[in-house]
Amino acid sequence: MSEPLNERTVFVISDSTGITAETFSHSVLSQFQQFQFDSVRIPFVDTIEKAREVAERINRCAEKSQAKPLVFSTLVDPKIARTIGAANCNFFDLFGAFVRHIERALGVKSSRSVGRSHTNVKSAQYNARIDAINFSLAHDDGQFVSGLDQADVILVGVSRCGKTPTSLYLAMQYGVKVANYPLIPEDFERGTLPTTLVPFREKLFGLSIHPERLSEVRNERRPNSEYASIEQCRFEITAAERLMRIENIPWLSTTNRSIEEISTKILTEVGLNRRVY
Amino acid sequence: MSEPLNERTVFVISDSTGITAETFSHSVLSQFQQFQFDSVRIPFVDTIEKAREVAERINRCAEKSQAKPLVFSTLVDPKIARTIGAANCNFFDLFGAFVRHIERALGVKSSRSVGRSHTNVKSAQYNARIDAINFSLAHDDGQFVSGLDQADVILVGVSRCGKTPTSLYLAMQYGVKVANYPLIPEDFERGTLPTTLVPFREKLFGLSIHPERLSEVRNERRPNSEYASIEQCRFEITAAERLMRIENIPWLSTTNRSIEEISTKILTEVGLNRRVY
Repeated sequence: MSEPLNERTVFVISDSTGITAETFSHSVLSQFQQFQFDSVRIPFVDTIEKAREVAERINRCAEKSQAKPLVFSTLVDPKIARTIGAANCNFFDLFGAFVRHIERALGVKSSRSVGRSHTNVKSAQYNARIDAINFSLAHDDGQFVSGLDQADVILVGVSRCGKTPTSLYLAMQYGVKVANYPLIPEDFERGTLPTTLVPFREKLFGLSIHPERLSEVRNERRPNSEYASIEQCRFEITAAERLMRIENIPWLSTTNRSIEEISTKILTEVGLNRRVY
Repeated sequence: MSEPLNERTVFVISDSTGITAETFSHSVLSQFQQFQFDSVRIPFVDTIEKAREVAERINRCAEKSQAKPLVFSTLVDPKIARTIGAANCNFFDLFGAFVRHIERALGVKSSRSVGRSHTNVKSAQYNARIDAINFSLAHDDGQFVSGLDQADVILVGVSRCGKTPTSLYLAMQYGVKVANYPLIPEDFERGTLPTTLVPFREKLFGLSIHPERLSEVRNERRPNSEYASIEQCRFEITAAERLMRIENIPWLSTTNRSIEEISTKILTEVGLNRRVY
């Protein structure tokens, strides 16, 4: 039952969702590609009793795998953190490592209260987030034209270049109202922007993609169609990029970029600096 | 131009998107509610030249505000990190603080390579994420019934209780295929599940909400309607919760919970432990 040396169990433990600890642990562990990490997230560990159960689980895992698990925590309560830290593990206490330094920098004590990160549920920020998601859904793929004046950004690009996931991510994570509008062969024949978009030219941001990748993506949806053929993809991409250059629309390629990277680049380029928690 | 004492500028600096550093800084700074933090994210700082520009920007901010900015970084390259750390700031180097400890725990050196966190763009995981988003969109609000057998989870609940944002979040962050299906007055009169859902009973998860909160949310959409009235909301919620109890469907209340908390609780309850990066 023992694991080979290049595997290690990672526990991600929090008194809240554990999303912060999970994001951090994934990010730092991506620097150790010699290892395969099996990650177990244990959220809502907010009492000493729950912490004791988790500590026992960590101990059992250490014994079974003959290797100390890595434990990343954002536990706010020092007693709960110590209970976990006493288990047979390599303990990385994210809050403990920084809270005292921040207290010194700010000259105040932290409140040490559990679950502060997501409390603003009924706040204006929360409503802005839900509004942005609804806006992006209603304005997906050019389906709803009225209200485009309320968009913060309007993404344009050929079918299946990544507009929908990017719109939803920006709405979900940043509360940004993002519409998206397809560029289609008729637009390329005419050689101008869809007239609907002309009044909102300054809100437009383009997405493009390598023709080969586009053909792959379209083939998954409509195998062996004209729509998915490499010739059609090349034609549309060349024409779309030319249109964006002529119309002076900033754009980027989604090929080899994650949704997070695309979204971050768009926010940076259009000068939006927002975050909804 | 100096800021009052209880404000502080926070720089979030990364060679990639900065999402990890931003999530962490928000989380730890929520423990210092005496302060108001003005957060500036600077992503893609991947050369010494860019780092020098950022360091100058931090120095200007420190001078202008007469207070050292807080700087959170996930810079992988130690030289770039040192360039930032030399600025007039309180520097919190997330990677630096942990990478050496992790190297010791694992007995290997880290690769110290930039932008590893989101590299799996063309991977099976990435496609699973996009598929999950498309699935959730196609199966939003019961609009597309065929394919429900492919759902990992089917969320049920009254109109506007939070099904759509939760479905999209689970798809986006975890690559989980989540359909959602409304419970409507006809279902309550009949007193049974919609027949469409009966074959998928074991995939159902319920969402509920306080009637007062539901009435607020519905009033934003359709002000002063019967649909938004507190009486109608009370009737629907009472009936939906009774139906979920009778049908033995696990459920939770979305009131006072963030989308992240709701999603984490659902994943925990249905025993899914997935993460798409």
